[in-house]
Amino acid sequence: MSVEQGVFDANYIEASSLPFFPVPMNGTEIKLLRVNPISGQFILVQKSQPDAIINIHKHYGAVIGYTQQGAWGYKEYNWVARQGDFVFEPSGSTHTLYTPPGDEETIIFFVIDGALEFLDDNGKTMVMFDWKLALDLYHNYCRANNLEIVDLTKFE
Amino acid sequence: MSVEQGVFDANYIEASSLPFFPVPMNGTEIKLLRVNPISGQFILVQKSQPDAIINIHKHYGAVIGYTQQGAWGYKEYNWVARQGDFVFEPSGSTHTLYTPPGDEETIIFFVIDGALEFLDDNGKTMVMFDWKLALDLYHNYCRANNLEIVDLTKFE
Amino acid sequence: MSVEQGVFDANYIEASSLPFFPVPMNGTEIKLLRVNPISGQFILVQKSQPDAIINIHKHYGAVIGYTQQGAWGYKEYNWVARQGDFVFEPSGSTHTLYTPPGDEETIIFFVIDGALEFLDDNGKTMVMFDWKLALDLYHNYCRANNLEIVDLTKFE
Amino acid sequence: MSVEQGVFDANYIEASSLPFFPVPMNGTEIKLLRVNPISGQFILVQKSQPDAIINIHKHYGAVIGYTQQGAWGYKEYNWVARQGDFVFEPSGSTHTLYTPPGDEETIIFFVIDGALEFLDDNGKTMVMFDWKLALDLYHNYCRANNLEIVDLTKFE
Repeated sequence: MSVEQGVFDANYIEASSLPFFPVPMNGTEIKLLRVNPISGQFILVQKSQPDAIINIHKHYGAVIGYTQQGAWGYKEYNWVARQGDFVFEPSGSTHTLYTPPGDEETIIFFVIDGALEFLDDNGKTMVMFDWKLALDLYHNYCRANNLEIVDLTKFE
Repeated sequence: MSVEQGVFDANYIEASSLPFFPVPMNGTEIKLLRVNPISGQFILVQKSQPDAIINIHKHYGAVIGYTQQGAWGYKEYNWVARQGDFVFEPSGSTHTLYTPPGDEETIIFFVIDGALEFLDDNGKTMVMFDWKLALDLYHNYCRANNLEIVDLTKFE
Repeated sequence: MSVEQGVFDANYIEASSLPFFPVPMNGTEIKLLRVNPISGQFILVQKSQPDAIINIHKHYGAVIGYTQQGAWGYKEYNWVARQGDFVFEPSGSTHTLYTPPGDEETIIFFVIDGALEFLDDNGKTMVMFDWKLALDLYHNYCRANNLEIVDLTKFE
Repeated sequence: MSVEQGVFDANYIEASSLPFFPVPMNGTEIKLLRVNPISGQFILVQKSQPDAIINIHKHYGAVIGYTQQGAWGYKEYNWVARQGDFVFEPSGSTHTLYTPPGDEETIIFFVIDGALEFLDDNGKTMVMFDWKLALDLYHNYCRANNLEIVDLTKFE
């Protein structure tokens, strides 16, 4: 907390202070950086191996993606995002994330509002992936690996 | 558009210029005021008869509610909101809206981020209610009643 | 806090539980309902006497206004908002709020992102009105009147 | 626009398709990626030479920063952010950005809500830096260098 009562300091997260942990998609891990349980925004780094897939999902809220390294795209579009490329996904957009074959890990920084709705072949909801599920996965990973749980929701 | 290129004017919506239309819940109509297809925020007035129910649903995004008149609450809580009372629902909160028996219509102004996920008795997703579904209901109502469709997404 | 750890409950604010307090504009009081020190959003009810003025200001963030009763407008536009009328002010919009002469108090519910920049005759910044200044005014009013200070930033 | 009328596609911006342009701070250029004239959010990449300074400023809205390469910090804090490090700045936070001496350019991805208020030695407002000023700088740079102006506010 700053000298000015009630104003929070900038919050610095060192990359090495938080772990990547697996999500239920082959070839992808995420590092959760911050979660806002009021707005529902969650911020993370995605690390995917070549030839990984994040199955088709719909967004209920906007998503901002910035490419740190590697290559990725959506099966529904022709572009391939590489280092420094930027993607803005409006609420309601629906797509299937993939990484092409190759040697390099892909690292993407994502700011996610709302939730991802994973869909089955008939367009029915399979699972809602929101800040709470992401936080539970992080907590479970820390417990299973005897890591200290950092409170990703707190400001000081 | 204002004289300063690229800055939008304040957008005024007269209450009588937009219709209330039914939603698939007995005893409730909504008037959609504005929709933001980028962020997914939608803004509406809810008008419910006494003894109405909005079935249990979970929010993926924060919701702001302000009571214009009448009375309403959530079955999961003891409070009853009346004129001037305010409710803030964080992302992830889950509840069943009702209006008590009585004579007066209840009118609530809502600002909704994200989406409402209506749940069945087993906690499974029944329907996702988002800006797009609300907008489709509005468009369908206008077409069925020969009303002019106002573009609720546009700024000038 | 709900049974589901980490998910916050809906937050209910009874109208009579918080005071209106004066702002440095003749004829206007506000009741602060909620403040988010992370996003900077603040939510309030404005109560203005007839013939009141809120001097010209520019918004750095969007504003949502819903009219509970009375009449108000911006000097820069011709419309007058009355009960149930709705105003959406995009970021960057600049205007002078007034209430017309008459007998009735005007009550408006506002959701404010960012800050209001009050401008002098040369378009220079006079004062920035943000969540922190609004919160300070509320705290000062409570202290001067021996009212309990409610923490408008907390969720449980 | 997707097949589903009214839902916008994901918006892909190739890094090389937009220019870095100077801002009125020695040693720093920005590449504006997207601007939202409704919410006031603007998204950019900052490229700073070693030993650059962004003078003291206050934020009216939250800021998210992700480090692509190099090193940077705030004079008010002891940490130095490097590749993969993340900074979240709550609304109201005030600081002076710098890059340490060295050989490497620093590249940071920023998502900015609200505006930056640059302050003089007495804490008075010098200039408000918002989406509109950033957009004007981009437009002016394009005109001066015969570059095509991309509409950074549009979705299709």
